[in-house]
Amino acid sequence: MIDRIAILGTGLLGTSAGMALRASGFRGSIVGWNRSPEQAILALQMGAFDSIASDPLEAARASQVVLLCVPIYATLDFMEKLAAVLGPDHLVTDVGSTKRVISEAADRLFNKPDRAAFLPGHPMAGKERGGACLGDANLFRGAVWLFTDDPAAQRSPQSAELVKDWRELVRAMGSKTLDLDPARHDELVAWVSHLPQFTATALSALLEEEVGAAPELKDVGGRALREMTRLGASPFSMWRDIAHTNTEAVERALAALEQRLAHLRENLRNPELRDEFEQANKFRRE
Amino acid sequence: MIDRIAILGTGLLGTSAGMALRASGFRGSIVGWNRSPEQAILALQMGAFDSIASDPLEAARASQVVLLCVPIYATLDFMEKLAAVLGPDHLVTDVGSTKRVISEAADRLFNKPDRAAFLPGHPMAGKERGGACLGDANLFRGAVWLFTDDPAAQRSPQSAELVKDWRELVRAMGSKTLDLDPARHDELVAWVSHLPQFTATALSALLEEEVGAAPELKDVGGRALREMTRLGASPFSMWRDIAHTNTEAVERALAALEQRLAHLRENLRNPELRDEFEQANKFRRE
Repeated sequence: MIDRIAILGTGLLGTSAGMALRASGFRGSIVGWNRSPEQAILALQMGAFDSIASDPLEAARASQVVLLCVPIYATLDFMEKLAAVLGPDHLVTDVGSTKRVISEAADRLFNKPDRAAFLPGHPMAGKERGGACLGDANLFRGAVWLFTDDPAAQRSPQSAELVKDWRELVRAMGSKTLDLDPARHDELVAWVSHLPQFTATALSALLEEEVGAAPELKDVGGRALREMTRLGASPFSMWRDIAHTNTEAVERALAALEQRLAHLRENLRNPELRDEFEQANKFRRE
Repeated sequence: MIDRIAILGTGLLGTSAGMALRASGFRGSIVGWNRSPEQAILALQMGAFDSIASDPLEAARASQVVLLCVPIYATLDFMEKLAAVLGPDHLVTDVGSTKRVISEAADRLFNKPDRAAFLPGHPMAGKERGGACLGDANLFRGAVWLFTDDPAAQRSPQSAELVKDWRELVRAMGSKTLDLDPARHDELVAWVSHLPQFTATALSALLEEEVGAAPELKDVGGRALREMTRLGASPFSMWRDIAHTNTEAVERALAALEQRLAHLRENLRNPELRDEFEQANKFRRE
């Protein structure tokens, strides 16, 4: 049974995971580390863990499960370092928004009988702003926590057990779990997550140019405008890694939306407009 | 002082207006009419008015203020008919989402000393689904209720007084009021209201094609996807008239978004991506 967890990265997701583990009844130890000591202290004060580690690799070695809650390229860096210091009684898992590059690194560096296990994970939960101060024990409740596990992984019995136990902890935090192939994962999230984000970014950037100088006009838009631009507040620091590691799938999704908008624009006075509304209504049928 | 109001059209907005007038303390009579008697009865049961009219023109003549809560072309039809039967002791106002064509009709048909007054109005409030059953006394609370009044209107003293009193009732329902030129109104709402709607429609229609056959995958997107596609449920019946009466402004806004998305797509791995996120962040600065 898991009773020692290290959380590396204590932004919104890392802090929320610690708080959610506690709220779900996890009684073991949780140690946290963050590049910025101030953020680590804040997460500690939010109740995300019991103690702060000064050395992330040391904290990982002392734990059974290492939860990486850092951007994708930082996750890949940690994977290289952790593979060298952990063994078959360890499990490393992550929360990165693209999974193909992470799964490839996991196949290369982990998931062999004499190595630590790696379980690629992706909770479909977040907020448009980051930081420990927004940590939320209920962030994962009702969300889907995706995994792209490798069925061919040859794991030690200890680490295979840890994988099973971690999946149970995820469900205890209130998430449904779903397993996908890594390539299929990246293609799917390009449509249902990355496309909505980049659309909100483009729409917000455009509206800033058009009406940004007149803040009173933003109020005019009301709830619809607020919702359609909420994700405009999302940080580049996180989305850069997503854009870099899922470029082709995001390009395809954006090009498809451009075409769809052009089709709608060309048919504002034609019967085809009805078809578009009816197709959209179908997506939102109860 | 206004003490006899007729609401013609008892969908979401008409029903909500009646309920909001009552909740704000309006003690006069409110009569409602709807093309569908079932919807009128529902609105009556929701407390939107005291009685149902069988003849809308008769109800209008017996009232001081006529609130038109029907789609834009139906509003224009009513304007023709009402101008013929109402006089200088009447005010007609509306809630239509585009104002240029309605303001032109008002100049032609109303707002002369021997005619009824017309005050073009547009509350920036709504829901993605319509109908009396969604009526909400708080729908207009905190919203902006736009007017595109004509400063050159030559109104009878009685109807000028009704215009002043109606603006007070709108504020009593909880809305801020803002006056715009009709052409500026249509240009502004193309950006802050129509563009978000048509973007949500295109995104929802596209996603229905890509992942609609696998409903479990919609859950994966979580809150961000739900928000970005909520307006996908909006009815064509209402948006057709908007597309027809604000075509050029909506075309410009859609073409600008297509360009912005293409720019973002071409720069997923370039520093320009940071600029887009920073520009979007500005729109959402607190």
